[in-house]
Amino acid sequence: MPIEKRRDRMKLGAFFHPTGNHIAAWLHPSAQIDAGTNFQHYVLLAQMAEAAKFDLMFLADAVATRDGNLEALSRWPQYMAYFDPLTLLAGIAAVTHRLGLVATMTTSYNEPYTVARRFASLDLMSKGRTGWNIVTSSNESEAFNFGRDAHFGHAERYERADEFTEVVKGLWDSYDDDAFVRDRQNARYFDPAKLHYLNHKGKHFTVRGPLNAARPVQGYPVLVQATASMDGREMAARTAELLFSPLNSLNDAQQFYGDIKQRCLRYGRSPDHIKVMPGLNVIVGRSEKEALEKQEYLNSLIHPDVGKELLSHELGGLDLSTHDIERPIADEVVERILQREKRSHSGLLADAARTRPTLRDLYQAYGGARGQRTLVGSPEQVADSMEEWFVQRGVDGFLIQPAHLPDGLHEFISHVIPILRERGLFREEYEGETLRENLGLPRPASHYEKSA
Amino acid sequence: MPIEKRRDRMKLGAFFHPTGNHIAAWLHPSAQIDAGTNFQHYVLLAQMAEAAKFDLMFLADAVATRDGNLEALSRWPQYMAYFDPLTLLAGIAAVTHRLGLVATMTTSYNEPYTVARRFASLDLMSKGRTGWNIVTSSNESEAFNFGRDAHFGHAERYERADEFTEVVKGLWDSYDDDAFVRDRQNARYFDPAKLHYLNHKGKHFTVRGPLNAARPVQGYPVLVQATASMDGREMAARTAELLFSPLNSLNDAQQFYGDIKQRCLRYGRSPDHIKVMPGLNVIVGRSEKEALEKQEYLNSLIHPDVGKELLSHELGGLDLSTHDIERPIADEVVERILQREKRSHSGLLADAARTRPTLRDLYQAYGGARGQRTLVGSPEQVADSMEEWFVQRGVDGFLIQPAHLPDGLHEFISHVIPILRERGLFREEYEGETLRENLGLPRPASHYEKSA
Repeated sequence: MPIEKRRDRMKLGAFFHPTGNHIAAWLHPSAQIDAGTNFQHYVLLAQMAEAAKFDLMFLADAVATRDGNLEALSRWPQYMAYFDPLTLLAGIAAVTHRLGLVATMTTSYNEPYTVARRFASLDLMSKGRTGWNIVTSSNESEAFNFGRDAHFGHAERYERADEFTEVVKGLWDSYDDDAFVRDRQNARYFDPAKLHYLNHKGKHFTVRGPLNAARPVQGYPVLVQATASMDGREMAARTAELLFSPLNSLNDAQQFYGDIKQRCLRYGRSPDHIKVMPGLNVIVGRSEKEALEKQEYLNSLIHPDVGKELLSHELGGLDLSTHDIERPIADEVVERILQREKRSHSGLLADAARTRPTLRDLYQAYGGARGQRTLVGSPEQVADSMEEWFVQRGVDGFLIQPAHLPDGLHEFISHVIPILRERGLFREEYEGETLRENLGLPRPASHYEKSA
Repeated sequence: MPIEKRRDRMKLGAFFHPTGNHIAAWLHPSAQIDAGTNFQHYVLLAQMAEAAKFDLMFLADAVATRDGNLEALSRWPQYMAYFDPLTLLAGIAAVTHRLGLVATMTTSYNEPYTVARRFASLDLMSKGRTGWNIVTSSNESEAFNFGRDAHFGHAERYERADEFTEVVKGLWDSYDDDAFVRDRQNARYFDPAKLHYLNHKGKHFTVRGPLNAARPVQGYPVLVQATASMDGREMAARTAELLFSPLNSLNDAQQFYGDIKQRCLRYGRSPDHIKVMPGLNVIVGRSEKEALEKQEYLNSLIHPDVGKELLSHELGGLDLSTHDIERPIADEVVERILQREKRSHSGLLADAARTRPTLRDLYQAYGGARGQRTLVGSPEQVADSMEEWFVQRGVDGFLIQPAHLPDGLHEFISHVIPILRERGLFREEYEGETLRENLGLPRPASHYEKSA
């Protein structure tokens, strides 16, 4: 089937882990070492991304520290201490004007009223620039911080997420868009007929409403998911507008892209109204050789404790403490990797294990991006690959994950974006004022308007 | 007993209801009519307050719209739609440098982990300028938004608040102040011995921790309460550092001030480490006459529906819909007021009722500040009264509640503050960088440090 020429442009997001996405980012001499407590670091990143016309910045989240070997974790701060994403983005909103602001907030350990209100506030403060990455918590340590002995089971988590999202959307519709008449002459601030009580009584939540916030500027903040599973696809096709799902080969990406857009059609949605933007780790050098040297240097910074901790975590807690990192990986490691490959879609660890590398080689191959796609090369090589994926309809854009910050972002912006722009693949200027306008997503009507 | 001459200066906070504290504020022609959805309005207010060297700005909260007669509420937007306070303050933090940022967050419908994290984030973002106004929810409509049929009983609410606060403080101590060594040479980001698991198992909460945030810049954000009750005083003396309790006469204030400072001593705390800053509504004119005219004008803007709704709410739902506002109040109204006076400490409504005014006169007398103290006069008169209360040790300062915004704040700043400053009662420049430093409050040590 010939692929129709694209008339749209590539969408770009920037994913900011505190010091960078590489597991050893903080050890890179140019990384902002106190990033997790340094608000100005994020201001700088956001303003750089906005000057480069990125669609959005994105912050991941967890509501617990990572559990594991403390000795190793003390060398791997990525998930140990960082800002609450939405609070941080509210600060960023005050010093940016067009950049989209996307935060993760879990449906497992929050209340829908609180989430609806926080995002409504940020959407109003930022004049329509927010997105909500809807996740469920699979991390047991989160359960322990919220009065539970164990995390919710898989089915319950997803069912809860589904109901949670519906309640949040319902609450965002509490006031109609034109409810606030602010008519001094008749002493009428809002039209009482345009205020709605949700009266939701469901399996997981009972929420009367109304939300004490005006309808968000965007109607709803952009709804984001990062699902990879088949179950997740169906929910995504029904409600998501932006997908950060990991995609590791063009073939997989094309399959996923076609499938998700088909599923959208079945829900009466336009395939253009769901954008596929997988994470992409980029390490760019003036030449391929320089880029590979950069990657090698970063990988060499991974402390053996951290390498072992990461692999142990990925392999279901397998104890690697006594394994020699300089010797080929043991049989039990290979077995675990092959077991794991059957369950998960990512074959990166299995590919790496096939050659029976040393333990060090294995964690270096896997550690930088934890199995997510990494593109290493000259600016042209990086742009070529991004172009190919976009033109061949594997993606609508990418969520760029700089290895170390701020330099990794700076390098992508100064070397790769000009090429994308020269080729007509990326915008010169923002198309609109809201995140929806820039992404080309429609503003959703209120439930009440639809049913009227 | 002779009153010792004060060597400290008056503390000033600014309380920003969206359009102003007067019940009819939004109808004033100069009020920012879209305040509840206008972030720039708050930026302007915060920057004005900071230029004037206010200690802090304060935002109240509720997690529901006000219930009642919708027709009346549509004319009284104060509690119907506004920003989530802490989200708003995160935006303000980015565009201010010294102003304290105090937000209400309820202990009834939140989780301690979430509250600890949000305040820790804001304290780090603002470099130590936050305060948490600890409240319990007595409003039934809040319960309905969080899966409950009824709100918590009085005792349960306070018990829960107490445990909640202890858990939050415990979580703030998760990392020691010097935990983050960020030592690249030894690949050590934090000292694992300085990370603590809370392991709290209480009656209302089970929280393992640790919090995934560094210890706040201030150790703990400033702990604020607004209690008036005797039960509340004991909890306040034990934990609060700033009290916004309503105080309506100098005599009451002196009694409260002496009592709360005595109670502090019993808990081994210095009386200087709890600051009494009651709310104060100020209407200032070039002359007393002009100020009284301003007040009269504002009161005349109260719509009869709103006046009745307010009184009905205050009088336990008494139906006033058929009462004539131009006739003296009915016997049943007087009875209800006297019943109410027995339960509450504020006699303002009872004082107003004694002369058997018309219903309109009654809601006008009560409506502007809902029973809280209002000072109406020339700049000198306002400054005189503030000085008297401060010098006579009724208060340590005031939480200024401008009737309408931004003009009410502007008038106070341009006419009253210069007089206070001339008399040496108020600062010329911030004393420190953090809210604690400006308020003269100590930075609390970690539990773990104390017990070491």
